[in-house]
Amino acid sequence: MNTLFTHCTLFPGTDSSLINDAFLAVSGNLITHLGEMNDVPEFGNARIIDCRGKLLMPGLINGHNHCAMTLFRGLADDLALSDWLHHHIFPAEKKHVSKEMVYWCSRLAAAEMLLSGTTCVADGYFFSGEAAKALRDCGMRAVVGHGIVDFPAPSVSDPAKNIEAVASFLDEWQGADPLITPAVFAHAPYTCSPKTLIRAKELADRRGVRFFTHLAESQREAEMIIDLQAQTPLGHLEHLGILNNNAILIHTVWLHDQDLDLLATTGAHVVTCPQSNMKLASGVARVPDMLKRNITVGLGTDGCASNNSLDMFREMDMLAKLHKLSYLEATTLPAQTAFGTATSANAKLLGLPDIGTLKVGMKADLVVLDLQKPHLTPFYNPDLLVYAASGRDVESVMVNGRMVVEKRKVLSFDLQETMTKIEEIAGTLKA
Amino acid sequence: MNTLFTHCTLFPGTDSSLINDAFLAVSGNLITHLGEMNDVPEFGNARIIDCRGKLLMPGLINGHNHCAMTLFRGLADDLALSDWLHHHIFPAEKKHVSKEMVYWCSRLAAAEMLLSGTTCVADGYFFSGEAAKALRDCGMRAVVGHGIVDFPAPSVSDPAKNIEAVASFLDEWQGADPLITPAVFAHAPYTCSPKTLIRAKELADRRGVRFFTHLAESQREAEMIIDLQAQTPLGHLEHLGILNNNAILIHTVWLHDQDLDLLATTGAHVVTCPQSNMKLASGVARVPDMLKRNITVGLGTDGCASNNSLDMFREMDMLAKLHKLSYLEATTLPAQTAFGTATSANAKLLGLPDIGTLKVGMKADLVVLDLQKPHLTPFYNPDLLVYAASGRDVESVMVNGRMVVEKRKVLSFDLQETMTKIEEIAGTLKA
Repeated sequence: MNTLFTHCTLFPGTDSSLINDAFLAVSGNLITHLGEMNDVPEFGNARIIDCRGKLLMPGLINGHNHCAMTLFRGLADDLALSDWLHHHIFPAEKKHVSKEMVYWCSRLAAAEMLLSGTTCVADGYFFSGEAAKALRDCGMRAVVGHGIVDFPAPSVSDPAKNIEAVASFLDEWQGADPLITPAVFAHAPYTCSPKTLIRAKELADRRGVRFFTHLAESQREAEMIIDLQAQTPLGHLEHLGILNNNAILIHTVWLHDQDLDLLATTGAHVVTCPQSNMKLASGVARVPDMLKRNITVGLGTDGCASNNSLDMFREMDMLAKLHKLSYLEATTLPAQTAFGTATSANAKLLGLPDIGTLKVGMKADLVVLDLQKPHLTPFYNPDLLVYAASGRDVESVMVNGRMVVEKRKVLSFDLQETMTKIEEIAGTLKA
Repeated sequence: MNTLFTHCTLFPGTDSSLINDAFLAVSGNLITHLGEMNDVPEFGNARIIDCRGKLLMPGLINGHNHCAMTLFRGLADDLALSDWLHHHIFPAEKKHVSKEMVYWCSRLAAAEMLLSGTTCVADGYFFSGEAAKALRDCGMRAVVGHGIVDFPAPSVSDPAKNIEAVASFLDEWQGADPLITPAVFAHAPYTCSPKTLIRAKELADRRGVRFFTHLAESQREAEMIIDLQAQTPLGHLEHLGILNNNAILIHTVWLHDQDLDLLATTGAHVVTCPQSNMKLASGVARVPDMLKRNITVGLGTDGCASNNSLDMFREMDMLAKLHKLSYLEATTLPAQTAFGTATSANAKLLGLPDIGTLKVGMKADLVVLDLQKPHLTPFYNPDLLVYAASGRDVESVMVNGRMVVEKRKVLSFDLQETMTKIEEIAGTLKA
């Protein structure tokens, strides 16, 4: 099936200029042509989508999420991280996380993400096979990390069997579906022993999949690692041989200059989650200092219990504004850099180089935005995508060449069925 | 005309609990009854609006805006405040601000605000009569401050005639329209001499209208006032006799402990604009320290050239998250406090005590929100209004008993006419 988007304003991605009155052609799952309307070639058999007054941009990528945690959205707000985690989230997870919960709540996350222009997500949670199935069934691209902790988890009751469980998850999903890339997610150095971290990373490297871990999210955690390991959290991972360009570190709020220098030499990547770090009062990751050192920094929402939104437009806005403030310098982290973290940088660090920008030969993961709205008027330049647009301006979404949302209706699955299931599952928490 | 909203989830305002399966009745411009559906009285002649799956909440109040600056949305992003103001905004204003521009661009602001659930705005700009007309014509409630600067302005070319011009604006608008309250807006102590500030404040007090001024927005400005006046910006205003409960100070980022203590004793109010202060790297107002001292703190977006959005939902979210971070304490500025700044606190400081909460006898300024969306599911409590809702979730809006937006269509004026006019005016800036 070929699709031809016509008469759009085309924004190919960070550091590109807008192309007015443009077209973009998709054949199968690939972008095959794009340019100005007066150069549009003949396309036999293409569905034509008229995009007058609309903008075409790359689908956003959410670099860090725990999809199934949509169930805990707003369950426990305005609490300190440790209180939130140990007295609210961990107990709720112990009681409510099941195969069924992960499947349906990941579908809810997919609905929210697709409807807000996110076409790919990096997920990390328990029952990862269920998350992978849910995201696949919703027509969403995903890197799905199998969660590992050194205590009995809802999905693997005996921690000694963790690596084995991850290996069989990789067996099942590597190459199984064009939308799903499996990965390894060792929760954090404070929940995983050095031995567990090393074994998880070895498995990831051996299988050629990405290794994720939370690192240095809160000051308390950083101090705990220094006490236990006589190293900074980053030094600890370096000492274990974990830092290379297959490693993705989430948060990295509490890093010193020496940590940043070290990180830059290793090629490891960072995903920053500004809203989660603000809401849980964790601190500010030194993103501009990382970018100066050419560290690849992507962007994620974190699980929506600690945010409480999966809207990547909101996250880009927060990222750009936060760092202007934290450096007291308004030229810091301009809008286009923020847009890049959510698109090309995330694509690079997730090992998916064929998404994140709209170019010939790239996968057709794209978003149609309605520009004819008061809050996007006037539209002088694409900075408004960061500073004024919201996920609710998304009109249509294509993933891998397939229209999954059109005129704000989800086409790729039965949204109402998911909403009904969630009300049922959430009812047990309210009770 | 009577209106009866039925079967809604009712959120009367900060520190109230949700009432499930509720009703709210409006007669003329007032709320006359509300409660649970099983207590609903008989209403002859009422239009019934079924609100199953929807939430009814107070209309949001934008405590600080320069409405007509929608024209400059995104014109100059990621620049330092002084560069932005002196090399971009002031020259653009000199060239483009006219009666016509203020009228139509204020209508654009009204469209954006109404569609995002803001029912009342405090405006301050030039050609204030045009802004007042525009906001009235759009069916929006507004406190409209007449701008004063000690240099030739687009509306008043001879600064010596400023006070006279404001007085005649007050003559025209005091008591003239139920939606419009005129006020005095002396731009700032760095653009208004002590004499101008004193005369403006005397006029405001004599006429019983509010006095607004920007204060201590940036460090540079604070240092300038200290150099010129040998006082902190707040000390300077106190010395001039300006601080009482008729004074509203915008921004107040650079205040010391002594300033805060002094401010608390005067009864003057504060409006904070977190997104503008972040984007222009001005700093963080010490809102939690103000609240501890019982200073009334409202919330505003600032002009949308420095934000670039007028969505008060986004502003509440930013406010709550920012202060958790700046105090490194996640319990700081909980969601309900943020909601209060945008509703009851703004109502109080603007001198409009009959808006901001939904109670019998209050004006019917209210918003209907669609809850049946993935990103608002599950809905355990009203904190989601701050942490997950957006202006684009607003379905219908009533101002002063009149439906101005219904199912996201603007009813109170011709939106398309405004959009067309704006494209025309913005075309001259693009050229």
